[in-house]
Amino acid sequence: MNDTTDKTPAPRTPITLLGAGAMGTALARAWLAAGHPVTVWNRTPARAEALAADGATVARSAAEAVAASRLVILCLLDDDSVGEALEGAALAGRDLVNLTTGTPAQGRARAAWAEERGARFLDGGIMAVPPMIGAADSGAYVFYSGSAGLFEEHGETLAVPAGTRYVGADPGFAALHDVALLSAMSGMFAGLSHAFALIGGEDIRPQDLAPLLVEWLAAMAPAAHASAAALESGDYTKGVVSNLAMQVAGTSTLVRTAQEQGVSTELLSPFWDLMARRLADGHAEEDTTGVIDLLRTR
Amino acid sequence: MNDTTDKTPAPRTPITLLGAGAMGTALARAWLAAGHPVTVWNRTPARAEALAADGATVARSAAEAVAASRLVILCLLDDDSVGEALEGAALAGRDLVNLTTGTPAQGRARAAWAEERGARFLDGGIMAVPPMIGAADSGAYVFYSGSAGLFEEHGETLAVPAGTRYVGADPGFAALHDVALLSAMSGMFAGLSHAFALIGGEDIRPQDLAPLLVEWLAAMAPAAHASAAALESGDYTKGVVSNLAMQVAGTSTLVRTAQEQGVSTELLSPFWDLMARRLADGHAEEDTTGVIDLLRTR
Repeated sequence: MNDTTDKTPAPRTPITLLGAGAMGTALARAWLAAGHPVTVWNRTPARAEALAADGATVARSAAEAVAASRLVILCLLDDDSVGEALEGAALAGRDLVNLTTGTPAQGRARAAWAEERGARFLDGGIMAVPPMIGAADSGAYVFYSGSAGLFEEHGETLAVPAGTRYVGADPGFAALHDVALLSAMSGMFAGLSHAFALIGGEDIRPQDLAPLLVEWLAAMAPAAHASAAALESGDYTKGVVSNLAMQVAGTSTLVRTAQEQGVSTELLSPFWDLMARRLADGHAEEDTTGVIDLLRTR
Repeated sequence: MNDTTDKTPAPRTPITLLGAGAMGTALARAWLAAGHPVTVWNRTPARAEALAADGATVARSAAEAVAASRLVILCLLDDDSVGEALEGAALAGRDLVNLTTGTPAQGRARAAWAEERGARFLDGGIMAVPPMIGAADSGAYVFYSGSAGLFEEHGETLAVPAGTRYVGADPGFAALHDVALLSAMSGMFAGLSHAFALIGGEDIRPQDLAPLLVEWLAAMAPAAHASAAALESGDYTKGVVSNLAMQVAGTSTLVRTAQEQGVSTELLSPFWDLMARRLADGHAEEDTTGVIDLLRTR
């Protein structure tokens, strides 16, 4: 989609971008490099003006920026900033794409707010850090949810800075997918932290352990498919090889090793405790999927 | 290494196996299928006798089994069971390969115990469940540490049921690598559990979320290389794209989403809390590697 080598480019969709932080700046540069006219506004003018050298038009106000293009990209600090920036802007007929970090409920409320003002609304969750934006083969992509019409009409433009994945008409789903993946990553990073702590003081180089960890986690991540199948069927015992009773027994070696190595188990014991609780509830023949049910507070 | 199609097989190294649980039985079948004479003993005779149909010789005692082959594989319940089974067996000149689950300290103590009795000792940590043993391309492998001479002499035999990875002369290192990988996996599974809990009650199929999670975790696991480099250099700020201050700020969206979705944060908040503690200690420009230091209790 980064068709910058095209010598007779078709006119590119004009874009207004509100927010020129690290992510907004990376997005603006990707669209500018692809030949899109970009109008930018930022609360702190210096960051917007830095993009003028790349060909962006700097607007004096958010309202002026919104007036410049039908397609308006929001990449601000938080949802409150979105409300403040758009207050007083004429939104009727505008296509708002909200890449501001937020929760599913914020995405849904902002979508209703935008529709009341006559705008189409698409929420987005960016699965990348700024250096990945606009870089070929970086793997960067954005979850989108909300107006299917908006996504279809502007899909090609949206695909310029990063891949696109439309996950449904519910404007909360982009944020929900985003947060689900980032939460899973937090758990993985907690596990990696514990693993590296275990070899502290031993004659094992972290750089020798790292590739073993990376390979192992990539090989074990597909266990998520089995959990998904169990959740969908409601039967957590089907096809289980290492059942909960065996897994809970196995955690004692993990706990004892952490103690021997002088490592706190605080990052992992909550998971082991829920496994033990599910086992005590009489689910010895299940896999660990039942832990998911214990996390639900309503 | 599963050279079962060889029509004129060379004599295979005889093996004694103590322990015919699910894993021991899978190991025995793999060696028998490859043409190795296998003598087996199990505390509960019925499990050993089941292997007689596959060609195994059943010993009446552990001592008799140990007397039958120089290469003795231990695959028992725990380290105490190893001590009990080998009590009274003649170990001088024997090559003991201990695949019993245990801690690094148990591996080291058992190695010293075996050497005092004139045996060579190799400890192993099996990175597989029984159905993967002896299956081609299953990815199953075993960490080995301890006697390099034993590993070199019997490497080909040991490679029959699963791949082999020798990680050092320290007999505690096999268990330490095993536990490090399993601990990291616990963290990843905790994160996956939280992610699936988040979509509970929403119109999102777990089987649609699973491939996104698997792909994301596999793409993010290589962050372990950056942590390893940071640990080795002692500089946790080098090349950081998303620093601790930004990451701690980002966790508020994860916490708020969990609350909105009715999901307990108990599995992930310990990691987020340590990130916040490290930030409060004045390390805003680092990545999350500093959390590892906070886990070390001595």
